[in-house]
Amino acid sequence: MGVNNNTITEEIEKFLDAKYIISGEELNDRYNHIWKMNDGLKAKALLLPKYTQEISEICKLCYAYNQPIIVFGGLTNLVGSTVTEGNEIVISMERMSNIEEVDEISRTMTVEAGVILENAQNAAKEKDLLFPLNYGAKGSAQIGGAISTNAGGLRVLKYGMTRNLILGLEVVKMDGTIISSMKKITKDNSAYDLKQLFIGSEGTLGIVTKAVLKLIELPTSRQSAFVAFNNYERVTAFLKFVDKGLAGTLSGYELMWDNFYQCSTSEGSINKPVLPWHYKYYVLIESLGSDPEKNYALMERLLTEAMEKEMILDGALANSASDLENFWKIREEVSIIKTSCTIDQHFDVSVPIPEIGSYVEKVTIALEKISGVNKVYSFGHVADGNIHFIVDKEDHSDELRKAINAVVYNPITVLNGSVSAEHGIGLDKKEYLKMCRTPEEIALMLNIKKIMDPKNLLNPGKVLDVKA
Amino acid sequence: MGVNNNTITEEIEKFLDAKYIISGEELNDRYNHIWKMNDGLKAKALLLPKYTQEISEICKLCYAYNQPIIVFGGLTNLVGSTVTEGNEIVISMERMSNIEEVDEISRTMTVEAGVILENAQNAAKEKDLLFPLNYGAKGSAQIGGAISTNAGGLRVLKYGMTRNLILGLEVVKMDGTIISSMKKITKDNSAYDLKQLFIGSEGTLGIVTKAVLKLIELPTSRQSAFVAFNNYERVTAFLKFVDKGLAGTLSGYELMWDNFYQCSTSEGSINKPVLPWHYKYYVLIESLGSDPEKNYALMERLLTEAMEKEMILDGALANSASDLENFWKIREEVSIIKTSCTIDQHFDVSVPIPEIGSYVEKVTIALEKISGVNKVYSFGHVADGNIHFIVDKEDHSDELRKAINAVVYNPITVLNGSVSAEHGIGLDKKEYLKMCRTPEEIALMLNIKKIMDPKNLLNPGKVLDVKA
Repeated sequence: MGVNNNTITEEIEKFLDAKYIISGEELNDRYNHIWKMNDGLKAKALLLPKYTQEISEICKLCYAYNQPIIVFGGLTNLVGSTVTEGNEIVISMERMSNIEEVDEISRTMTVEAGVILENAQNAAKEKDLLFPLNYGAKGSAQIGGAISTNAGGLRVLKYGMTRNLILGLEVVKMDGTIISSMKKITKDNSAYDLKQLFIGSEGTLGIVTKAVLKLIELPTSRQSAFVAFNNYERVTAFLKFVDKGLAGTLSGYELMWDNFYQCSTSEGSINKPVLPWHYKYYVLIESLGSDPEKNYALMERLLTEAMEKEMILDGALANSASDLENFWKIREEVSIIKTSCTIDQHFDVSVPIPEIGSYVEKVTIALEKISGVNKVYSFGHVADGNIHFIVDKEDHSDELRKAINAVVYNPITVLNGSVSAEHGIGLDKKEYLKMCRTPEEIALMLNIKKIMDPKNLLNPGKVLDVKA
Repeated sequence: MGVNNNTITEEIEKFLDAKYIISGEELNDRYNHIWKMNDGLKAKALLLPKYTQEISEICKLCYAYNQPIIVFGGLTNLVGSTVTEGNEIVISMERMSNIEEVDEISRTMTVEAGVILENAQNAAKEKDLLFPLNYGAKGSAQIGGAISTNAGGLRVLKYGMTRNLILGLEVVKMDGTIISSMKKITKDNSAYDLKQLFIGSEGTLGIVTKAVLKLIELPTSRQSAFVAFNNYERVTAFLKFVDKGLAGTLSGYELMWDNFYQCSTSEGSINKPVLPWHYKYYVLIESLGSDPEKNYALMERLLTEAMEKEMILDGALANSASDLENFWKIREEVSIIKTSCTIDQHFDVSVPIPEIGSYVEKVTIALEKISGVNKVYSFGHVADGNIHFIVDKEDHSDELRKAINAVVYNPITVLNGSVSAEHGIGLDKKEYLKMCRTPEEIALMLNIKKIMDPKNLLNPGKVLDVKA
């Protein structure tokens, strides 16, 4: 439209204080990912609005000026969803960090999108409630980002993905329209459930500004156990057994292959092995309940029965808070694996549960045959069908990266799985989207993108390739 | 387009056997609701396809001929979503009743849309699994209808609405495009989650043809108790207490006001009162677990503690299978209430949990002041924020119906509730949609309707008023 940069920031200065408009040299102190804190941010400007109305005004202006926008939350995304090219206006949600209400009776929390996940968790805890969403980046990740990516994490088995924890949502569309449904109710069948469209769309359909989160009563008992198997069929049989036995209280069933477990508990590691190294599969179980003594006794009874029935080959029950902590470090300290890698490439695919055993075996063998691949580590939320691979490789070449991707992704189509269980598509997986979504699905997505953002200004280039 | 009726059915006969094309006199044996089985169906023709591909062909033809389509499931909808005017082609899903697979390891069931809910429940049960969706009409309601209306029911508290139980979906768009994502995985963040768009859209955006359902391990213990209160704050305090104490196993918290309880257990009724009549609020609790003895003991301990702390005024624990059955009849046999009414008008609103007590009190007083209203019965899934009213009234007049609607719906906007928690909008609530959705939301819904069904041929006139 022949309008220069100054004009748009000048327009924005009419309603947003100049100190909240960062540009020029100042952008060098900003970045687009918490792992890339040495590279300055490439953008026209970074804006720090405080109110939804300000974001609406920014969107209206950018819409008129054909100005691309990208929204920054905690910058913990793993698939390049917050990468900028330089021509964008960045909206950072960091000043929208207000927890507006914790309603103990409705068991809801009303938050602005910039609230850090851990702060939301703590605010719930103060009222004896739990916001169950939990993952490694909780100290930086923001609620708005979790919603935009439909984040998963460690307790999806019991509480579901972020989608299941969102009761109300406020979103700003690219044209500035505010779509608000900030309801504290769990049931609402009044026509289309629009919030579902924005959850998991990685900032390409609208800007999440507020949300009503679902909370649950804080569990007062947490039990964990490590069990071992040599046979994948036993891993799934025991899942059924323990899930049934724990009736509604099983909250984690984390599978580690021997390669992962051995590395995570190796001599150099901070972790000691809980069970010996010679098994093929290790599972870490968690149950959340209300009565530590009875819950421990139940877990013990189930493990004993499973041992007697030879469903499991070995088992260890956490007997103390420090056991619990140590058990979970083995699973959660993925940095130990990463440190052992020359260069790491990671995956978060989904595959139907019965197929996981043979899929991982085949993929691992095929990957280790690729020249430049040193080792493969596999682990995952097996009860959710979600496996992570960390591939230790020799170089950053595109050729090697693509060869590895091909091995991991090629079987996904036939297995009816997903190239992304939880991290999303962003930039990095865009070319692989077609392996798990049909041309008809992708065409419909593009149609939806078109009505939500007809000029393709919102996080352009991410998730889908929009034709001009 | 100047094409006569014969032409389109002739075209359809090319791929659908003539015996599966019902028209003319034969339509007199068909109907549009199971409560209206005396009125013959008004439609151009009723089609009985067996395959998704046939439905796709039908849609392509109807799209070309500008022919409206309406899809029939079990015809148990309560808001006029299956009403026809005579110019429609009806697609009945009854021949698409195949249960394709129960996968015990993935804990999924793959079904065609015409499978009756109760048949799906039974197929799960045969494999020691549970499909948790459950409501009164299960013997007639079809899975496709449950998906199209995002049905709720009696166990939403623990298992969520239908939306939470759908892993994969196959849908035919009005132009014949098949949108298929029949995945048996619980985590899939590969771009937009399109199935969410179709779930709960009441057949206005696409035709659900198949689905992958989520199953859970069959609970082997079911405990129930009746408790009584005179004060609504205690109802919500006890909900928190018992939910925390039962940690993940509370599956029902059904509130009945005295008016409902007394009618349901009155002398003429088949039900005997479990607790005396003089309390104001009665709650029926259910927990699903794995160990009948321990679960009973826990429920007993929680009730005793609640009595001691004066959280509840009275309580009775089901001691036998027949107790359990009798307890639930009091809540579930809504026909007893309906029979006691001259004419009944029913509601399924949502309101935030802390507001329910005063909302119901005010509404009841206001309704009983309306000339023509005899009595008001109130009950509901209080832990979900969902209240049902059955209003006993004197006549079918539009004036009286609207006066009653106004009293129930007017407070919904300020309370940030919903005019439909679970039944949907259909025809009957269309004019009230604006009380709980903003003009911006409705405009966006119309935009979505437009890209999915640009000619407004799919269940036209339902949910939204599409301008030509």
